[in-house]
Amino acid sequence: MSDSSKSMNITWHEHRVSTGEREKLNRHKGAVIWFTGLSASGKSTIANAVDHKLHEKDIHCYVLDGDNIRHGLNENLRFSAKDRDENIRRIGQVGKLFTDAGVIVLTAFISPYKAGREQVRSFCPHGKFIEIYVKASIEVCEARDPKGLYQKARAGEIKGFTGIDDPYEEPENPELILDSENHGIDELADQVISYLESHGILTSAL
Amino acid sequence: MSDSSKSMNITWHEHRVSTGEREKLNRHKGAVIWFTGLSASGKSTIANAVDHKLHEKDIHCYVLDGDNIRHGLNENLRFSAKDRDENIRRIGQVGKLFTDAGVIVLTAFISPYKAGREQVRSFCPHGKFIEIYVKASIEVCEARDPKGLYQKARAGEIKGFTGIDDPYEEPENPELILDSENHGIDELADQVISYLESHGILTSAL
Repeated sequence: MSDSSKSMNITWHEHRVSTGEREKLNRHKGAVIWFTGLSASGKSTIANAVDHKLHEKDIHCYVLDGDNIRHGLNENLRFSAKDRDENIRRIGQVGKLFTDAGVIVLTAFISPYKAGREQVRSFCPHGKFIEIYVKASIEVCEARDPKGLYQKARAGEIKGFTGIDDPYEEPENPELILDSENHGIDELADQVISYLESHGILTSAL
Repeated sequence: MSDSSKSMNITWHEHRVSTGEREKLNRHKGAVIWFTGLSASGKSTIANAVDHKLHEKDIHCYVLDGDNIRHGLNENLRFSAKDRDENIRRIGQVGKLFTDAGVIVLTAFISPYKAGREQVRSFCPHGKFIEIYVKASIEVCEARDPKGLYQKARAGEIKGFTGIDDPYEEPENPELILDSENHGIDELADQVISYLESHGILTSAL
């Protein structure tokens, strides 16, 4: 082994910046805030509201949703069962990387299957996967239908649509349930932030 | 459209936190610092040294390398040409997300093919993909061989190894070339930081 190689492998690998050191710089912990719920339940809207409020508190956060995932990282996935599982797995793995970087990442995907969500929980650091069920009945979501997707699903133009001809498996023990039928976005976003505050996410350990 | 749906889609989507606002909080820009070069050229070591030095300057950065990608996001990829391309594409897309979040991400992968690197450049924001060629001859890299990979490739135990039986396509116009044969890690890391400073990456635009 040459001197050059030695210095590379010994001297510098000791200096790897740890997650704790990154969190100390940010003055809060990293975490994956995983919103799950039916289409039009309010996941993306609430995630963006939380992101906005956290940003105003100088918290380093980021939203992963259809807008930046579907046409980017996961543009080569379709809607087969296998591809849907892979979609959630990749989003979870990216969330884990952001968490490791000390960033709070908010994900807004239907993620209808319990197994997929539990897989992501299993590979995230303990206490840093926060599952939030955005709860609204199929009737309310279908009445909202901001993108006309329920209408298309009812007409048979979209197959395998969650809540219509594909199941949504409700979380059994989510960290938080948000009732988006009876509460406004602002209030629900505040509930999320209260949870993060009371569970030590918004302060660094060091 | 119900009132609830309206408030979700109109009120809150206007509040999306922009990349510029995230960069303002961080007090620097986001960017993808893409290290490319032969195995044992020093990519990962230099990336970690830069990460360490930037962290000490309160810069928000993160390293993507084999350690956190191979057993996570890309654990389902092997070494076919198709999988190698997908490997680089996914790393680039994750880098783009970090950049959008205002973080400087340092990637340390051989990334031997010009087309793959150019694809990543094409989908990253202009001026925020910084290709750094870590240059060392195959002879020097093979002499270092810290993981014994060249030895295995010469023995035929690894097929398609870059520089042995698979080509490395040198970057034609990289933003920076680092000569890792004749300069130490510390000096090379400083060259990267000087580049970032002189190209406005380490200050925010706002």
